[in-house]
Amino acid sequence: SKANEPHSAPPVEHYFMNNVTQSRNPAENKEKVLILTPLARFYQAYWDNLNKIAYPHDLISLGFIIPKTKEGNQAYADLQKQVTKTQSGPKAKRFASITILRQDTENPLMSQNEAERHKMENQKARRAAMAKARNSLLFTTLGPTTSWVLWLDADIVEFPPTLIQDLADYDAPIVAPNCFQRYYNNDKKAMDVRPYDYNNWIDSSTAKEMAAKMGKDDILLEGYAEMPTYRTLMAMMHDPSADPGTKIKLDGVGGAALLVKADVHRDGAMFPPFPFYHLIETEGFAKMAKRLNWDSYGLPNYLVYHYNE
Amino acid sequence: SKANEPHSAPPVEHYFMNNVTQSRNPAENKEKVLILTPLARFYQAYWDNLNKIAYPHDLISLGFIIPKTKEGNQAYADLQKQVTKTQSGPKAKRFASITILRQDTENPLMSQNEAERHKMENQKARRAAMAKARNSLLFTTLGPTTSWVLWLDADIVEFPPTLIQDLADYDAPIVAPNCFQRYYNNDKKAMDVRPYDYNNWIDSSTAKEMAAKMGKDDILLEGYAEMPTYRTLMAMMHDPSADPGTKIKLDGVGGAALLVKADVHRDGAMFPPFPFYHLIETEGFAKMAKRLNWDSYGLPNYLVYHYNE
Ligand SMILES: Nc1nc2c(ncn2[C@@H]2O[C@H](COP(=O)(O)OP(=O)(O)O)[C@@H](O)[C@H]2O)c(=O)[nH]1
Ligand SMILES: Nc1nc2c(ncn2[C@@H]2O[C@H](COP(=O)(O)OP(=O)(O)O)[C@@H](O)[C@H]2O)c(=O)[nH]1
Ligand SMILES: [Mn+2]
Ligand SMILES: [Mn+2]
Repeated sequence: SKANEPHSAPPVEHYFMNNVTQSRNPAENKEKVLILTPLARFYQAYWDNLNKIAYPHDLISLGFIIPKTKEGNQAYADLQKQVTKTQSGPKAKRFASITILRQDTENPLMSQNEAERHKMENQKARRAAMAKARNSLLFTTLGPTTSWVLWLDADIVEFPPTLIQDLADYDAPIVAPNCFQRYYNNDKKAMDVRPYDYNNWIDSSTAKEMAAKMGKDDILLEGYAEMPTYRTLMAMMHDPSADPGTKIKLDGVGGAALLVKADVHRDGAMFPPFPFYHLIETEGFAKMAKRLNWDSYGLPNYLVYHYNE
Repeated sequence: SKANEPHSAPPVEHYFMNNVTQSRNPAENKEKVLILTPLARFYQAYWDNLNKIAYPHDLISLGFIIPKTKEGNQAYADLQKQVTKTQSGPKAKRFASITILRQDTENPLMSQNEAERHKMENQKARRAAMAKARNSLLFTTLGPTTSWVLWLDADIVEFPPTLIQDLADYDAPIVAPNCFQRYYNNDKKAMDVRPYDYNNWIDSSTAKEMAAKMGKDDILLEGYAEMPTYRTLMAMMHDPSADPGTKIKLDGVGGAALLVKADVHRDGAMFPPFPFYHLIETEGFAKMAKRLNWDSYGLPNYLVYHYNE
């Protein structure tokens, strides 16, 4: 329409929230999916797999939040290039909409290699910053018609094209696949897989006792020898010979790949940047969802793969 | 544009969050304000005052959430009628956009008169439901360009047209005017004003001791003789002869009228529907914001008025 045409009346939108279903057949029911990715580094394999997602792209919106760092600038440039390509390519492959947020906070702890960022003393500040980034992205992109939120880290470089349907079919409020990593096994002299994400776990009495004795602002972390929690880690439960559809209940979840019914977030479930029951970020999210009567589940034998630095 | 024209490339939107300022001169800086109202009953005086707001209406978006009750249906019909009028009226008076959500949950505790809904045993479930309604509204309407969120209950029937500028000028992350009520004073045989909202308070050692001794899921409530907290209530601090600009720090806030910098919400501050440090809903919100390092303030001598049933 012409720029100097009189403006029509501004939009008034009505939404009946009970029409925003979250069913086992999301594509048939035309349920909208919001894929949210905090992005510090761009990986082409992540984008290629996103393009291959077998869920109708016109029902998918993408949201990114990118840190205000040199590394973030590079990721932003790389992403923009691919976004332009996809959104001007074949119609059926275009996504409904794409939102890219550049963070306004700089975080010195963020541009780190795997070893550095996993150091225990760096975890609390780092994960608090990640939690705020996730909240910022969530609060500003979730819409009244969003049925599902798929959290997908930018370094998840391999996942099945049917990821959305596969996860939705479990009809779980929150469901996490198992996040593994490919590597070269020197003993076997061959490529192999190993667990990557330790944030998907079932609580233990040891962890509960540790939490009870902690200072009120201390947090429990998973995957650190200095802090043995004896939680049951989904990463360790992977069994290629068992039922691929196995589903277990979880008390803590990771955010690498996580499908969430939008109503869970709408009720108020976010990623606590502060210690919440001695948990933070995605693990705190599972606890907060639980306080809102939503359960988390995990799929030990359904794998997605994290980039190997 | 014609319905069968080829679609142009779907939108890709870029937002630089450091451009989304929250300044003392919001109108000059073209800062967008989102006014959010949980609405169970429609009051014409509320709408009339909304129309009189002296902040550029093209920078204001409105969001409503309406319960799925008979009363809600009536409120919805009344609201729609007025919305249509305003949005097709003089251009300068039209709001940038209006979003109306109909809740999918029915809450039997909701359609209550003042006496009934203020009964202590009804408060926990009622305020949890209110918290979820507020979260739902917030999570689905906050956008990447929103600078401020003004929470304004539908039964706030009198407030100055300069409310937004006045509150923003305090440069506070969270700021609450004092919510009073007009009534007929039988002793004076004249109209008078009295405090209405007791949720704006400064914490007391008594309340802290009570909280420390409570069961973990119990909540503290304000304004109940059965539960004397000895908190300092802003409602009681009103002094017409004192500095009208007086600002005090608060530990708990009400939601009747509350200006919040959008970054506070973006960091994750929401209305806990579960006991959070023994607080719930708007009072829990202030505590959660505090955990995110955002302070709440109140204006004892700046009045807005609640409807008198
Ligand atoms: N927006 C934003 N994203 C980040 C930041 N740091 C890391 N990320 C992204 O957040 C996700 C998880 O971070 P990562 O460092 O891979 O966590 P890890 O795999 O658990 O060690 C990845 O997609 C990163 O690209 C940050 O400071 N801001
Ligand atoms: N969406 C929604 N709004 C409600 C509900 N109950 C009350 N409200 C609105 O929420 C605000 C606060 O509720 P109200 O009952 O006035 O609380 P009080 O003044 O603190 O007793 C008002 O604007 C009500 O119209 C509900 O169940 N759903
Ligand atoms: Mn990673
Ligand atoms: Mn009220």
